[in-house]
Amino acid sequence: MNILVTNDDGVFAEGLLALKTELDKIGNVFVVAPDRPRSACGHSITLHKPLRAEKVVLEDGSAAYASNGTPSDCVTLAILGIFQEPIDLVVSGINHGPNLGWDLTYSGTVSAAMEGAILGVASFAISVAGIEPKIDYTAAARFAVDLALLIDNHKLPESALLNVNVPPVAASDINGVQVTRQGKRRYVGQLDKRTDPTGRDYYWLGGDLPEDDLKEGTDVKAVADGYISVTPVHLDLTDEASIEAIRAWGVEQID
Amino acid sequence: MNILVTNDDGVFAEGLLALKTELDKIGNVFVVAPDRPRSACGHSITLHKPLRAEKVVLEDGSAAYASNGTPSDCVTLAILGIFQEPIDLVVSGINHGPNLGWDLTYSGTVSAAMEGAILGVASFAISVAGIEPKIDYTAAARFAVDLALLIDNHKLPESALLNVNVPPVAASDINGVQVTRQGKRRYVGQLDKRTDPTGRDYYWLGGDLPEDDLKEGTDVKAVADGYISVTPVHLDLTDEASIEAIRAWGVEQID
Repeated sequence: MNILVTNDDGVFAEGLLALKTELDKIGNVFVVAPDRPRSACGHSITLHKPLRAEKVVLEDGSAAYASNGTPSDCVTLAILGIFQEPIDLVVSGINHGPNLGWDLTYSGTVSAAMEGAILGVASFAISVAGIEPKIDYTAAARFAVDLALLIDNHKLPESALLNVNVPPVAASDINGVQVTRQGKRRYVGQLDKRTDPTGRDYYWLGGDLPEDDLKEGTDVKAVADGYISVTPVHLDLTDEASIEAIRAWGVEQID
Repeated sequence: MNILVTNDDGVFAEGLLALKTELDKIGNVFVVAPDRPRSACGHSITLHKPLRAEKVVLEDGSAAYASNGTPSDCVTLAILGIFQEPIDLVVSGINHGPNLGWDLTYSGTVSAAMEGAILGVASFAISVAGIEPKIDYTAAARFAVDLALLIDNHKLPESALLNVNVPPVAASDINGVQVTRQGKRRYVGQLDKRTDPTGRDYYWLGGDLPEDDLKEGTDVKAVADGYISVTPVHLDLTDEASIEAIRAWGVEQID
C-alpha cells in the first residue's frame, strides 16, 4: 500500500511523525506537508502563485517534502506531481486539536482528505481532540493503522472520506470506537478590539470554549464519552430537507 | 433590513458594486470585504495575526471597509466588531465565476455565507457562472433583491444558507429559476511543472475545463440549461448513506 501522509500543522509536527512511524509498518509512506502551520486554512488552494516542494529530512532520518502550499495543495502535488508511484490512501494528521461538528469546514486537515477524495483516492483525516500543548498521539497512530487496513480491505464509497477524532487520553482509557454523524459545535465568535501604537484599531479573532451540542450519535458526543469517533463525510452540502420549503416560497416563480 | 455585503474578489470588484447598488433600494447596506482578491480561499479564517478593517470609498462614493482577512473574517468583523446595528442578512458576491458542485468548498464566496449562517444570520452567496474577463452582473443583482425580499418574508431554515448561480447571459435570455441540489463538478487536476532560473522546480496548479456531471435537478445542469440555480446548503457533511456500510466493516470492534 502506497500511503500519502500530510497535515495542516506543518511537516515537522509531532503528530505527523507519530502517524508516519506507525504507518511505516504496513506500507510505503510518502510525506508531503506544508512548510509551516496552516491551521484553519479550510479547503483553500493556491491558484495565483507557483507551488514549491522542497526535500527535507524528518526527525527519524526519513525524506519528506515541505511545500509552500496548503494541505490540499500538498495532496495535489503528491498525487499529480511528485511521485511516480500511484497513491492508494491519503491520511491527513494527526492533527493537534479536535475537528468536530461545524469546525470541519475550517479544517486544513479534513480539507486535505477532501482533496484526496476529489482526486479519487481513499482518504481519511485523524485528529486528537485535545487542546493542551503536549498531546499523546499513541492511540491515534495505532488506530490509523487499523483503519488503513480496513479501508484497504473494504474500499470507501465513492467520494466519501472519513473524519476521525480520538479523545486526548492514554490508549488504555479509550472506551471504544463509534461510527458517528457530524454534530453541531461552534466556537462562540469573539473579537478582541485593540489599538496599535499609531492609534489604529485592530482585532484578534477568538472564542470561548465551544457550545457543544451533545446529541446522541454525534462526533462531539462520542469523543466527550471517551470513544474514538469515525464520521463518514462527503462533498455534497445540499440541505435536502429545505429543498421543498424553499420551492414553496415561490422562488421558481420569480421572473 | 440591514444587509451586509461581502465577497472574495475584493472590495473594489465590479460584482460587489453591482450587488450593493441594487440592494441599496431595499435596505441599509454595509460593506466589509477583503482588501485584495481571495478566490479559492475556502472557509479559512485568520487566527494567528491581527485583523484590520480600514475605511475606503467605493466608486459610487459610499463608504466601505477593506480588511486584510478572508471573506469569513469579514463577516465576523462586521457582525461582531464593526457595526452597532444588527445585521439581518449576509449577501456574498456577486462572484466572478461559477460556484457549482464540488467547487463549493473551495469558494471564499460561499464560505462567507457559511460564516453568516454559523453566526445565526440568514445568508446567501451569489455568483455569475461565466469565466470571461467581462461579465454582465445585471440579472444577478436584480435576482439578489428578489431573493432578499423572499428571505425576509419566509426566514431560512436554521443553519441553512443559499448558494445562487446565474448563467452568464443577458437578463432577457435567462429561462427561469430552479431550486436544485449540488451536483458533481470537478476540475480535472493538472500540474504544470517548470524550472526556475536557478534550476529549482516549481508547479502551477491548474486544470482543464471541469468534467460536468449534468444530472437532472443539479446546480450544474440548471445553469447549463440557462436557469438561475438556487441550492439550499447546510453545514452537515455527514454521508448518511455510508454510516451503516462503515459500521459493517467492524470499525466499532477495533480495540
